[in-house]
Amino acid sequence: MFKAKVFVSLKQSVLDPQGQVITNALHSQGYTSVVETRVSKYFEIMIDTNDKQKAEADLKSICDKVLANPNTESWKYELEGV
Amino acid sequence: MFKAKVFVSLKQSVLDPQGQVITNALHSQGYTSVVETRVSKYFEIMIDTNDKQKAEADLKSICDKVLANPNTESWKYELEGV
Repeated sequence: MFKAKVFVSLKQSVLDPQGQVITNALHSQGYTSVVETRVSKYFEIMIDTNDKQKAEADLKSICDKVLANPNTESWKYELEGV
Repeated sequence: MFKAKVFVSLKQSVLDPQGQVITNALHSQGYTSVVETRVSKYFEIMIDTNDKQKAEADLKSICDKVLANPNTESWKYELEGV
């Protein structure tokens, strides 16, 4: 069994309006030292196999085809045995 | 300047319908080894201060009051100097 931790983030060049709204809200509540907020998605995926290579191959394919929009988002993952 | 990495996740006892939908979609696409998916939010927050204690105090307050719903969500963070 493997646990995959997947981060799907907007590419650095893509505007993050949700993050901007949070930054503005924090400023208006007095947290003036916050200069930038970026919002991403984080997935924890349990994969039931003993074959790490297959788990990684599946995971890359899942990130590319299901979890991320390759036009605007990038992804990375960590895979650990559990 | 500090970079905070904040994870806001549904508590383990709370159902995650979005994760369930993704698991079902993955099964229908042939990724049958996936047994569970949980979806969380991930924030990267840049904090412009040299005072690590103040940055941590602000961050805890931000997580509790702004980013997470304490009824259904838990949070954790990592803080690193940049």
